[in-house]
Amino acid sequence: MPFPPLNFCSKCGAKLVLRVPPGDSLPRHVCDACGTIHYRNPLVVVGTIPAWKDQVLLCKRAIEPRYGLWTLPSGFMELGETTAQGALRETMEEAGANIELGEVFSLLSVPHVNQVHLFYRARLLDLNFAAGEETLEVGLFRESEIPWETIAFRTTATTLQHFFADRKEGLFRLHAGEIMPPK
Amino acid sequence: MPFPPLNFCSKCGAKLVLRVPPGDSLPRHVCDACGTIHYRNPLVVVGTIPAWKDQVLLCKRAIEPRYGLWTLPSGFMELGETTAQGALRETMEEAGANIELGEVFSLLSVPHVNQVHLFYRARLLDLNFAAGEETLEVGLFRESEIPWETIAFRTTATTLQHFFADRKEGLFRLHAGEIMPPK
Repeated sequence: MPFPPLNFCSKCGAKLVLRVPPGDSLPRHVCDACGTIHYRNPLVVVGTIPAWKDQVLLCKRAIEPRYGLWTLPSGFMELGETTAQGALRETMEEAGANIELGEVFSLLSVPHVNQVHLFYRARLLDLNFAAGEETLEVGLFRESEIPWETIAFRTTATTLQHFFADRKEGLFRLHAGEIMPPK
Repeated sequence: MPFPPLNFCSKCGAKLVLRVPPGDSLPRHVCDACGTIHYRNPLVVVGTIPAWKDQVLLCKRAIEPRYGLWTLPSGFMELGETTAQGALRETMEEAGANIELGEVFSLLSVPHVNQVHLFYRARLLDLNFAAGEETLEVGLFRESEIPWETIAFRTTATTLQHFFADRKEGLFRLHAGEIMPPK
């Protein structure tokens, strides 16, 4: 979901100009016809780490980007919902999975794509999951079975690494950090 | 910063229509002329709790909304930054405060205004702070001196309450939750 270009004012349809508004410090897309300032801000991606005994649920993506690669259930937070509601919704939409939400586990900024990824721990309540429209396949994986070479996103891989490390230690904590651009 | 209306396509200037795109489950503003889908998503507000001994730094707002009321230094996360960079930047912009950033402390969804507020603990490094353009006054407050009646936002009040409670216990932890609409 890249941002569409800001050529025209979405309110009145006039041409936009890029300049620093009074009292601001960054250039914004401004409409001189109706005075509207069009801001662009990072997006929040919310997801879960659904656990069943020593296994974790992963989804094989049926959409771009990263079609055919594996990821934790997650997606863009929608208007009118909380981060927890968004994480539950995405888990149901992508994996048809019934979960009990746990604590916030990872908070990873991805500044080069203007995103913040937020994962909750979760307990899978039953095995009645099923691939949703955006998913080719849903599977449960032990740590030794995680398809590390075909994980879709680095936020997913990082979250899974922290999850298995914390589980080994017997103490789950929040992992906040950032993912830098690929070299 | 309410969202401007989505009447016209920001890419090509054509009139938008509201409908559920194929494979989606929610109505979106769609451009039938160029095919662009215009999504709207929640915004992230990042801030800090700058502490100096038993005091906390607050800013008196010089802008709407809540002009003249007190808040923790915070503002909208910008493109290309991490949540930590945004929190540092806002603390410098609003309070001119030199801080060392600590752990993520509160993560509060405010679904009725489509925002997620994220506060970091922070250590004030010196007392050379000064009100920025969006601030009337910067002050240090002990718990007993916090102007609870004139705090600008409920996310700020909630974060401060958790901060002083955790400090009393001697253990700071993450506070994730939500703020419901006022009755």
